[in-house]
Amino acid sequence: MTDRLLELFEQSNGAFLSGEELSERLQISRTAVWKQIERLRQQGYRFEAAPRKGYRLLAKPDIFDLPAFIGKLQTERFGKHVKYYDEVDSTQTVALSLVAEGAPEGTLVLAERQTAGRGRMGRQWHSPKGKGLWMSMILRPKHIPLSFTPQLTLLVSVALCRAIRAIVPVEAGIKWPNDLLIGGRKAAGILLESSAENETLQHIIAGVGIGVNLEPDDYPPELRNVATSLFIEAGYRIDRVELLCRFLLEWEQLYALYHEQGFAPIKLLWEALSVSLHKPIRCQTAQGLVDGYAEGIDELGALAIRLQDGTIRKMYSGDVEFR
Amino acid sequence: MTDRLLELFEQSNGAFLSGEELSERLQISRTAVWKQIERLRQQGYRFEAAPRKGYRLLAKPDIFDLPAFIGKLQTERFGKHVKYYDEVDSTQTVALSLVAEGAPEGTLVLAERQTAGRGRMGRQWHSPKGKGLWMSMILRPKHIPLSFTPQLTLLVSVALCRAIRAIVPVEAGIKWPNDLLIGGRKAAGILLESSAENETLQHIIAGVGIGVNLEPDDYPPELRNVATSLFIEAGYRIDRVELLCRFLLEWEQLYALYHEQGFAPIKLLWEALSVSLHKPIRCQTAQGLVDGYAEGIDELGALAIRLQDGTIRKMYSGDVEFR
Repeated sequence: MTDRLLELFEQSNGAFLSGEELSERLQISRTAVWKQIERLRQQGYRFEAAPRKGYRLLAKPDIFDLPAFIGKLQTERFGKHVKYYDEVDSTQTVALSLVAEGAPEGTLVLAERQTAGRGRMGRQWHSPKGKGLWMSMILRPKHIPLSFTPQLTLLVSVALCRAIRAIVPVEAGIKWPNDLLIGGRKAAGILLESSAENETLQHIIAGVGIGVNLEPDDYPPELRNVATSLFIEAGYRIDRVELLCRFLLEWEQLYALYHEQGFAPIKLLWEALSVSLHKPIRCQTAQGLVDGYAEGIDELGALAIRLQDGTIRKMYSGDVEFR
Repeated sequence: MTDRLLELFEQSNGAFLSGEELSERLQISRTAVWKQIERLRQQGYRFEAAPRKGYRLLAKPDIFDLPAFIGKLQTERFGKHVKYYDEVDSTQTVALSLVAEGAPEGTLVLAERQTAGRGRMGRQWHSPKGKGLWMSMILRPKHIPLSFTPQLTLLVSVALCRAIRAIVPVEAGIKWPNDLLIGGRKAAGILLESSAENETLQHIIAGVGIGVNLEPDDYPPELRNVATSLFIEAGYRIDRVELLCRFLLEWEQLYALYHEQGFAPIKLLWEALSVSLHKPIRCQTAQGLVDGYAEGIDELGALAIRLQDGTIRKMYSGDVEFR
């Protein structure tokens, strides 16, 4: 019943609908109309009620429109199996249990909210309800050596950066290895949890968190200077369905390209989108700080840093800062 | 009670002990002595009984002597937590559940028999009771980039090869990446299952299967031409406790060296023990067969193959055959 009511409000394009009209068209009493509207209000819809005019829909709750997503998705496999949750502890944890059950490549776990979202190095990932895309995807790469895993990390960041640039008019860039920055602040993060048998990759759970429609108040104080969202940067709300469909399509296409042609084309795309290259950087590693000039990435995805004495040092992991 | 009886037989060094003497020393009836001996026979001990002489111990069952192992182990951490099982499906599976429970680095899972032992690429691993060392160890490397995992695979094979050569007079060699061969036949295998978060290793479960005292009849027909055991090669039974203690010590020392000095010293040791280098080989890869001359391994552990046209191709995974 609330579905039909919503349909009427959506067709009205923000105009008022009187209680009498709604009652007639839905063939329910005016009291029942009022009850349905109250129910929608509890779900997060906002209505204006005015004497003699009736009701009009002011705002819908930002609930991910799963049917629209399924209808619009243009991929062959990525996201074709989708598990959508209102709330989970962590989409990574849910995806891991799906891997154990044999879920196919491209299985997507999506949640409106994570209560214990995970970031890199055991850090927490802030995932407020309905404001972002908090997701994990299962990959089962074919015959990819373990040493090539960093290439897949870079591939995901390229796909995400291209999707954001296609949908939102912002200059998104990639900080090595895979942070998405806009104007120097982080708008999205990627966490790849992988498993391998000897020298061959078995599966990857690719966790991606995109700050889509967070407003400044949605961030805890310690994140306000370092994090941003697409909404904050663009100045308007971003359609999460459209963004996710584009991201999955870019990702699937790059992933196919990678399996066909290897890392070379991905490397070129990454370099073009990178904000880390050709500048002085400082890299925090387990062995201490490394200062140098970021020369490029190598065929395995390692960052090549030229030190002051001219030697090249390759970084396989670490946190990069600009000096 | 059977413990004290065994002690007396072990002290007698294979000489006969009369029922009367045993009865007196253990302060039990001669019928009780007979019952204890029957119980030991059921556990796999073999006794000779002779009129007027009594009993003598001919052979003990090959049960891994856990107390002796604990007493002789000279490591600081490797094997200090040990879980010993008479039978498991797979020591890898047991170790994985221990990882989830937070088991520390060096935790060892050991089984007399595996009913579903795992080899590379989903192959079965033949693990008959009491005849081998079927084991898994938990490693939690510190700040090791994912790309370096193959180095750790090679490290385990070096430790194992050194331990075998120290205890058994055989020419054990390593076939890239980590098969242990004696006289061209496989005597041990290594399966490393690893997990990573982005570009950093989280944990490794190192599965090692060593064919210690298997006799030719212990192998299924399809393995007889390709597999061998230390017993078959040396011509006498090998003490599993001694071999395992040595292996864990070599492994722990190399692992510490690796964390201090990196892969360079491990690489030298691997090259010295390799049977794959400086000869024509054929490598089966996902992309097809690669024929070439095995030049060496690189700083990441990849096998460098010189092709006929002189170019060098790096192999990160694959099955090697000698041509």
